Amino acid sequence: MDKVTAAVLVVGNEILSGRTRDANIQFLGAALGEMGITLAEARVVPDVEEVIVAAVNELRARHDYLFTTGGIGPTHDDITTDAVGKAVGKAVLLDPRAVDLLKSYYANPADLNEARLRMARIPEGAELVANPVSRAPGYCIENVFVLAGIPRVMQAMFDDIRPRLKRGARMLAHTVTIYKPEGVLAGPLAEIQQAHPSVDIGSYPFVREDRLGAAIVIRAIDAQAIGAAALAVRKMGEAMGAEMDEDLSL
Amino acid sequence: MDKVTAAVLVVGNEILSGRTRDANIQFLGAALGEMGITLAEARVVPDVEEVIVAAVNELRARHDYLFTTGGIGPTHDDITTDAVGKAVGKAVLLDPRAVDLLKSYYANPADLNEARLRMARIPEGAELVANPVSRAPGYCIENVFVLAGIPRVMQAMFDDIRPRLKRGARMLAHTVTIYKPEGVLAGPLAEIQQAHPSVDIGSYPFVREDRLGAAIVIRAIDAQAIGAAALAVRKMGEAMGAEMDEDLSL
Repeated sequence: MDKVTAAVLVVGNEILSGRTRDANIQFLGAALGEMGITLAEARVVPDVEEVIVAAVNELRARHDYLFTTGGIGPTHDDITTDAVGKAVGKAVLLDPRAVDLLKSYYANPADLNEARLRMARIPEGAELVANPVSRAPGYCIENVFVLAGIPRVMQAMFDDIRPRLKRGARMLAHTVTIYKPEGVLAGPLAEIQQAHPSVDIGSYPFVREDRLGAAIVIRAIDAQAIGAAALAVRKMGEAMGAEMDEDLSL
Repeated sequence: MDKVTAAVLVVGNEILSGRTRDANIQFLGAALGEMGITLAEARVVPDVEEVIVAAVNELRARHDYLFTTGGIGPTHDDITTDAVGKAVGKAVLLDPRAVDLLKSYYANPADLNEARLRMARIPEGAELVANPVSRAPGYCIENVFVLAGIPRVMQAMFDDIRPRLKRGARMLAHTVTIYKPEGVLAGPLAEIQQAHPSVDIGSYPFVREDRLGAAIVIRAIDAQAIGAAALAVRKMGEAMGAEMDEDLSL
């Protein structure tokens, strides 16, 4: 299977100002990873049209997919759709399918005011993405998926697009937790990495109840390669007399 | 005062795979904002040298400061320093000041092994950044600050560099919380934004105990301009008979 890569573009002043801690990069990284799609890059940009346009064009050219989150609500600071329209060179028009979705959501027609109708403005030629939470849709234009910023809505939208994405070879991960300081493990671990070039070995140090340790994460497409590297890591830990925990799932 | 901008570059496969949720962008966004430094852009890149080099060079050219987090530990996957050295065109050498710091941390000289000494490899000409948690320093070379990835260590390092940063005019923020759906507020809010062009009005919808509302965040350097816009937002809420909460701090 081919390698499939993606980028995430988080749009929002509130993430850069520190008001809000982003949760969408982590969700999309994990959810895409499960499908064999590698999240290769993520960016956070402010609500500034030319900055969004430039980032969309750079990232969509470089990866199979680009997912944007945020900036598609009803207020004046929601400018992602205009930026995406400019980036892909499509007019942004009131989409009758999106208008119908909003009509079905607002029982009283007067509630579908001008501001809310902004959420039915979609670049010409886009496919809609369902929003089961509050109806206002996301959409896909070329290889760009435009999703909501609110994590619960974004995640529901991702359920809708999952079947549309091509899958790659899934990267498997296996973790051996070793209760030894990372600096003690580093030398032998580098040798294991050299001896097992087809796997990617990451070391993530931690302190738990005043004990130093490191989570050794072995990643590869090939489960057998992971197994061989994990065995070497376990042997290293045993030789040090280290306490270890192992997550046996792949 | 001049506008001072910064970028954050988060280095780490674990953030992109979804294993870890980044906390450093939020911390740095808020901490820089308090000093009048605008976090204008953030990126997450994998542990791939040429990708890190390219991002460092793009971001350091575009902003007053670049802060990197992650990839400066003792293991083979810690490659940020080599990438930064290449980006700024400086040799990476064992730094005697950094070696002394590590010597003071490891009571037994044998514990300062080759892997740990990697943490004393610093680009030539850099100034060190103190790490009161585990001694291995960060550093500053040109306008690039290279910090640890573990949030507790990164935050302690930031305390050390705060006095070295030039401050800009501080952006003040004031929040009016209105218990009305965002789609009802959006029209009048756009008018208030137009009438108050010197402030930046953001709208962040929420659901609390099944009630819809929006946090209206008004940001500006000038407190009086914020006060005038906040008054207009309050009047809008009152005219709708909406329940409101207001954080009176600036």
